[in-house]
Amino acid sequence: MSDTAPLFDRVAIVGIGLIGSSLARAMTDYGIARQVVCADRSKDACVKAMELGIVEMATTEVEVALDGADLVVLAVPIGSYAEVGERIGPHLVPGTIVTDVGSVKQAVLRDIGPHLPDGVHLVPGHPVAGTEHSGPEAGFASLFQGRWCILTPPTGTDSAAVEKVAALWRRAGSTVEVMDANHHDRVLAITSHLPHLIAYTIVGTASDLEEDTKSEVIKFSAGGFRDFTRIAASDPVMWRDVFLNNREAVLEILQRFTEDLTALQRAIRWGEGQQLHDQFTKTRAIRRGIIDAKQA
Amino acid sequence: MSDTAPLFDRVAIVGIGLIGSSLARAMTDYGIARQVVCADRSKDACVKAMELGIVEMATTEVEVALDGADLVVLAVPIGSYAEVGERIGPHLVPGTIVTDVGSVKQAVLRDIGPHLPDGVHLVPGHPVAGTEHSGPEAGFASLFQGRWCILTPPTGTDSAAVEKVAALWRRAGSTVEVMDANHHDRVLAITSHLPHLIAYTIVGTASDLEEDTKSEVIKFSAGGFRDFTRIAASDPVMWRDVFLNNREAVLEILQRFTEDLTALQRAIRWGEGQQLHDQFTKTRAIRRGIIDAKQA
Repeated sequence: MSDTAPLFDRVAIVGIGLIGSSLARAMTDYGIARQVVCADRSKDACVKAMELGIVEMATTEVEVALDGADLVVLAVPIGSYAEVGERIGPHLVPGTIVTDVGSVKQAVLRDIGPHLPDGVHLVPGHPVAGTEHSGPEAGFASLFQGRWCILTPPTGTDSAAVEKVAALWRRAGSTVEVMDANHHDRVLAITSHLPHLIAYTIVGTASDLEEDTKSEVIKFSAGGFRDFTRIAASDPVMWRDVFLNNREAVLEILQRFTEDLTALQRAIRWGEGQQLHDQFTKTRAIRRGIIDAKQA
Repeated sequence: MSDTAPLFDRVAIVGIGLIGSSLARAMTDYGIARQVVCADRSKDACVKAMELGIVEMATTEVEVALDGADLVVLAVPIGSYAEVGERIGPHLVPGTIVTDVGSVKQAVLRDIGPHLPDGVHLVPGHPVAGTEHSGPEAGFASLFQGRWCILTPPTGTDSAAVEKVAALWRRAGSTVEVMDANHHDRVLAITSHLPHLIAYTIVGTASDLEEDTKSEVIKFSAGGFRDFTRIAASDPVMWRDVFLNNREAVLEILQRFTEDLTALQRAIRWGEGQQLHDQFTKTRAIRRGIIDAKQA
């Protein structure tokens, strides 16, 4: 196969939200697939996807979208995986590759794995990319450019299938990393899940303030709060499912965070300036690491 | 006075870091002052300010900078205010206006107020602007464009002096709001101080992880964590002083935040998806408010 030939004949994207629709666009724009179709349980989303011209066919019946697909991409909230797995399983033919874009990876093996017939290859994936916007109209083809995509194939997965999914993401502009699902969930608990939980909390705390204070909080949000509101505007269903499906790792890192916050709270209460200064200085090393790694 | 004539003859900026040096540049670029001089206890900062050509004179002796100044701007960490106040007080002549750029405002009245002779006008100010970078080379004239500047003159302050400081900030591109110092400190505790404390905490929690996990946290920081590291790279001395000098308001809002976080933690532990979804949905209203207020 040449480096520019399409990797897949027909790709079925299940869930045409921000990520699904961005991937549909990338599939076409970067010549990854000959044909892209989608399924979404929302009829409005299907109509929108057709209007946008990002898929050749859109259906609310997921089984219909699978017909002739050599790649199936699940881009629905993680809480729907078990149900979707049960529906699609009987319609998948040997040789089909099934992948996903969810932010939690152990749950994929648990909820999708049991429903797949022999000879169907499950290659879970997580493009570390996104915006605070939702829906098919929010997507764009370049969303994955310069970002990481983490694949977490279980031991024994067909290596050609893994390589094909990896090639897809590389062609979409991402750098691919393969790791264990458990390890993925622990790393993402700190880099993504905890920051979102904290952001949702602080914006929630603000939204409980009296009305006049709240309007001033909005007015003077540029002092740091604004960045949190952007994160806390992310899709509520997606994030509900992330927390419900990565419970142990999130609770563990949250416990550490709370201990550290309590220590700082105590330092503020007792006027321990040196401790505050030391803490505020050591965080700079991480920022430098991120700048050096060109992730800033 | 015409709308374009300089507002001040000679401005002395005490502390030539990010904010002080940005203001020095704005003073010149926007014709706010005929002459700008600065004092900084760091000789290196003075040399740098002269090299950058953003002041006509730089000195490590604050008294020297005051000579002939009709406006004195304090742009040093809040913890230095009492000491600076004591040093400059005896050298200030009636009619001089003293202002500052600190992020906490009750402390200004407490630490600077008692040292000022009669006839010197204290107009505390807080430009709600900044970056995560520090030092005279990090400043730029347009930093205050399109941002808020909050003034908190105590009751009885000379209204002409307040108007002159307000005119300065408007000419630097800011919108001026006048409010009570106590109220300022409570609003900023949520919009700025708590977000910084949280960001410092979460980045600190990450920096305590084992080395191999830490390098992956840096690698995959784009999932939300990165935004926190930017905030947590802000000047440690400045922020130490903010927390030590706005203790009550910060501890009060931190208490609310902790209660809210504990409630979410409990919802995750017990799998209460509806509560998570409700919480994640209500935060979107605040984001919409910020977008509507054109602060996004």
